Amino acid sequence: MFELFLLLLVVNIIFLMLKNRQKSPENSTINCQKQPLNLDLLPAKNGEEPTMQFLLEFVEILTNYIRKTFDRSTKVLDFHHPHQLLEGMEGFNLELSDQPESLEQILVDCRDTLKYGVRTGHPRFFNQLSTGLDIVGLAGEWLTSTANTNMFTYEIAPVFVLMEQLTLKKMREIIGWPVGEGDGIFSPGGAISNMYSVMIARYKFFPEVKTKGMAAAPRLVLFTSEHSHYSIKKTSAALGFGTENLILLNTDERGRVIPADLEAKVIEAKQKGYVPMFVNATAGTTVYGAFDPINEIADICEKYNMWLHVDGAWGGGLLMSRKHRHKLNGVERANSVTWNPHKMMGVPLQCSAILVRERGLLQGCNSMCAGYLFQPDKQYDVTYDTGDKAIQCGRHVDIFKFWLMWKAKGTVGFEQHIDKCLDLSAYLYNKIKNREGFEMVFNGEPQHTNVCFWYIPLSLRGLSDGEERRERLHKVAPKIKAMMMESGTTMVGYQPQGDKVNFFRMVISNPAATRSDIDFLVEEIERLGHDL
Amino acid sequence: MFELFLLLLVVNIIFLMLKNRQKSPENSTINCQKQPLNLDLLPAKNGEEPTMQFLLEFVEILTNYIRKTFDRSTKVLDFHHPHQLLEGMEGFNLELSDQPESLEQILVDCRDTLKYGVRTGHPRFFNQLSTGLDIVGLAGEWLTSTANTNMFTYEIAPVFVLMEQLTLKKMREIIGWPVGEGDGIFSPGGAISNMYSVMIARYKFFPEVKTKGMAAAPRLVLFTSEHSHYSIKKTSAALGFGTENLILLNTDERGRVIPADLEAKVIEAKQKGYVPMFVNATAGTTVYGAFDPINEIADICEKYNMWLHVDGAWGGGLLMSRKHRHKLNGVERANSVTWNPHKMMGVPLQCSAILVRERGLLQGCNSMCAGYLFQPDKQYDVTYDTGDKAIQCGRHVDIFKFWLMWKAKGTVGFEQHIDKCLDLSAYLYNKIKNREGFEMVFNGEPQHTNVCFWYIPLSLRGLSDGEERRERLHKVAPKIKAMMMESGTTMVGYQPQGDKVNFFRMVISNPAATRSDIDFLVEEIERLGHDL
Repeated sequence: MFELFLLLLVVNIIFLMLKNRQKSPENSTINCQKQPLNLDLLPAKNGEEPTMQFLLEFVEILTNYIRKTFDRSTKVLDFHHPHQLLEGMEGFNLELSDQPESLEQILVDCRDTLKYGVRTGHPRFFNQLSTGLDIVGLAGEWLTSTANTNMFTYEIAPVFVLMEQLTLKKMREIIGWPVGEGDGIFSPGGAISNMYSVMIARYKFFPEVKTKGMAAAPRLVLFTSEHSHYSIKKTSAALGFGTENLILLNTDERGRVIPADLEAKVIEAKQKGYVPMFVNATAGTTVYGAFDPINEIADICEKYNMWLHVDGAWGGGLLMSRKHRHKLNGVERANSVTWNPHKMMGVPLQCSAILVRERGLLQGCNSMCAGYLFQPDKQYDVTYDTGDKAIQCGRHVDIFKFWLMWKAKGTVGFEQHIDKCLDLSAYLYNKIKNREGFEMVFNGEPQHTNVCFWYIPLSLRGLSDGEERRERLHKVAPKIKAMMMESGTTMVGYQPQGDKVNFFRMVISNPAATRSDIDFLVEEIERLGHDL
Repeated sequence: MFELFLLLLVVNIIFLMLKNRQKSPENSTINCQKQPLNLDLLPAKNGEEPTMQFLLEFVEILTNYIRKTFDRSTKVLDFHHPHQLLEGMEGFNLELSDQPESLEQILVDCRDTLKYGVRTGHPRFFNQLSTGLDIVGLAGEWLTSTANTNMFTYEIAPVFVLMEQLTLKKMREIIGWPVGEGDGIFSPGGAISNMYSVMIARYKFFPEVKTKGMAAAPRLVLFTSEHSHYSIKKTSAALGFGTENLILLNTDERGRVIPADLEAKVIEAKQKGYVPMFVNATAGTTVYGAFDPINEIADICEKYNMWLHVDGAWGGGLLMSRKHRHKLNGVERANSVTWNPHKMMGVPLQCSAILVRERGLLQGCNSMCAGYLFQPDKQYDVTYDTGDKAIQCGRHVDIFKFWLMWKAKGTVGFEQHIDKCLDLSAYLYNKIKNREGFEMVFNGEPQHTNVCFWYIPLSLRGLSDGEERRERLHKVAPKIKAMMMESGTTMVGYQPQGDKVNFFRMVISNPAATRSDIDFLVEEIERLGHDL
């Protein structure tokens, strides 16, 4: 019996030793005396063990970060000014050098990079249209970088090319184009997707511009709302239209295009001898979250033979919700649609699609038939080589994370997420619309998750509307925001818009956010701003 | 003694059981009776354990894939035609559905996605300019997606914005601009970087195009070599110049621009009343790997007041090598440079930089001052908000993996990698230049790692040069390539160029490749092609 006991004891000790050996830093390949370098990793001879060891230690850093990100007691950020980070923080040196660092130091650098960054997946991060950290989407992105390939040909991205094709078709079905017909491509972001729309429209109406340049076309004008995204303006400049030929449309109090204003401006342009070519209708504006009335705009586009693009970078996600998709009624009449799954659908950055109703235009507009990539004499069906549709050559695989999330959530999962975010924003709206110290920028329940409001500090509450109040109010949001960032508790955006002075724009796309986080935000603004 | 033996046996069994328990699928959270869904992961309540479990199982899939990728007994790819993958392979279904899949199925999907893909990191993958799988770069990409943020403002990407700034400065120093002065930005790829160069050049000479469009400028012409990358042509079309206003320059037998031809064509354009504005010199052409003579081109650009862009997407990496950087002599005279670390430097896709000698042009050309992003009244130095320089709005973090690799390798590590690749290509060249059945496309040692050659099957060796031989030779490379892909042993590109029929273009950027892999490739081509 005593023998048995002794043996068990010994076994126990051995077991514990073995267990510790796995975790002990002294024993790991990474932390041993001779600090291993990048050169010791695969493809080096005998590189397998150090590689696995390095990746496992590295993944532990990431999983710790992920765990903490969802913990509300963690700060959203640990703010430092540029000069502070540039001077170097406790051994975190951003400068690059001639000689290699040890892998141990590389892991420290990774930890520090995360430490001084911003936790965009934190339940109280509301600063951008893209927020949140979807675990399946994240896994998709890790796989994508492990596969490290390029979308230009089926040859080297067979599975991803097919996933893109099927997903784009599904998106077109959801838009409402018959049997998902049409075309499309994933691009590096909404601005590039919008750029595609203008390029394709020009190619449709004036294909000779491709070879002869803008000189081959009359003076072309484009239309977009004064609330629309600035990428339309960037594109007008880049593609050679000129920003003066982008006509801004008036909006109603809620930021929606007034169709009559569009028609008046089209007629005016025609009278001047210009050619109205392209109208951008925004589905979900950046600041107000407004949805332009697509059907009425489509009527005018048909009447005057103009291309209708719907910029649904932000609002496109609502198409997944049976409850909210009516806000995009008429989208099926668009000639092209921008839709960024990396915004409202919570897909990791970057994931943006440009969808086109007429097949062949993307190819016609952009193809240059590079012989070294798109050989016609390959053994497979080369219509799957989609690279020549793009303005890019190499193209990052943006589809996989989205496809994987769709598999994991189902269409219903995206719908639930979107409905939940819109419910939360209604909750916020109802909470503050009559609350002391809060003032809404526009009346009525928001169309999207954007809730725009001023916080009025005590010292301003008695003041009557006028220049002094405006000037002082303009400074409130930046001050609160600065304190918010310095305390690291939450993040929300602010900006002026037209003649409205700085106000907060709350947006909710974060799947981690709950009512308690909305309550927290409101109370935090009050706490920080009350005595300003 | 027998007791002891028995006990040891029992202990052994327990030990094995415990060990197996860790691996057994029946016991993991993922594979238990109630199959967990995406909804069970963080941010769900009690989501931490399933999340960690899911990520660990997932990482095991990735690390297994990585391990096998570097194992030469693994196939480079398991080729299937599009219709085969679309029909569904043994439970791998690409279609998206309304209802969620279990996380168990998600893991299977991930495994299958990798199974039917192409191992671009495999030591025998030579198909593209971007090859290889750098472990530290990969880790960088995993961290980037975990941080999931956006480059547009310092506010939400403080560390990454500074890393970009420091790395771009370092690259400018290496180019040779005094104290690294100038500007730049990382873009989604070389094609977009080249697009930036043309936009900025136009803005420099005709800033009014930004507001008034191409109508405000005279007829502008651009110049590039007939061997240059097709993105220059795409850009001429997209930006409104028209491809006819892109003049192609003649090259010598090695694919290098003939400067006298440039000058003659500039003079000819001027005589027609056009305005020569932009010259692209390629540092490392896509097919031949040729380096245009930058100094002589720069002389002409200075003489005629044209913008000089150097497209070093492929060849820029050679600047890191003291032995090979002379091939880019004169690059410091360029007004802008494209340089893709995701090609010759082995950084995971996407990582491309556009570097500009004159500070302020990028900003001037592209800025639209969106109030909701680039508020002037932030608490930090807003010159660090670089987003308004970009044609994009949201911009993926491409810098971190590159920065991390630079830390891990040091400048010397990149140099070693580049020297090694060029040595390998010299080895290949010397091996085949006089080898029976091989014929070089051009004479002399390659400037870059590109080695271009025909393989002549036995049946063609006696044939004299003529139409029949050309026609038959044209079909050889595609046939060998198809067999290569179907057997999955190695991958190398082919294409025609000008009047040359299909030939192989071998490129070496893969850090895993050794002389034995070069030997293998040569023998594999002989094996597959000998009896064609």
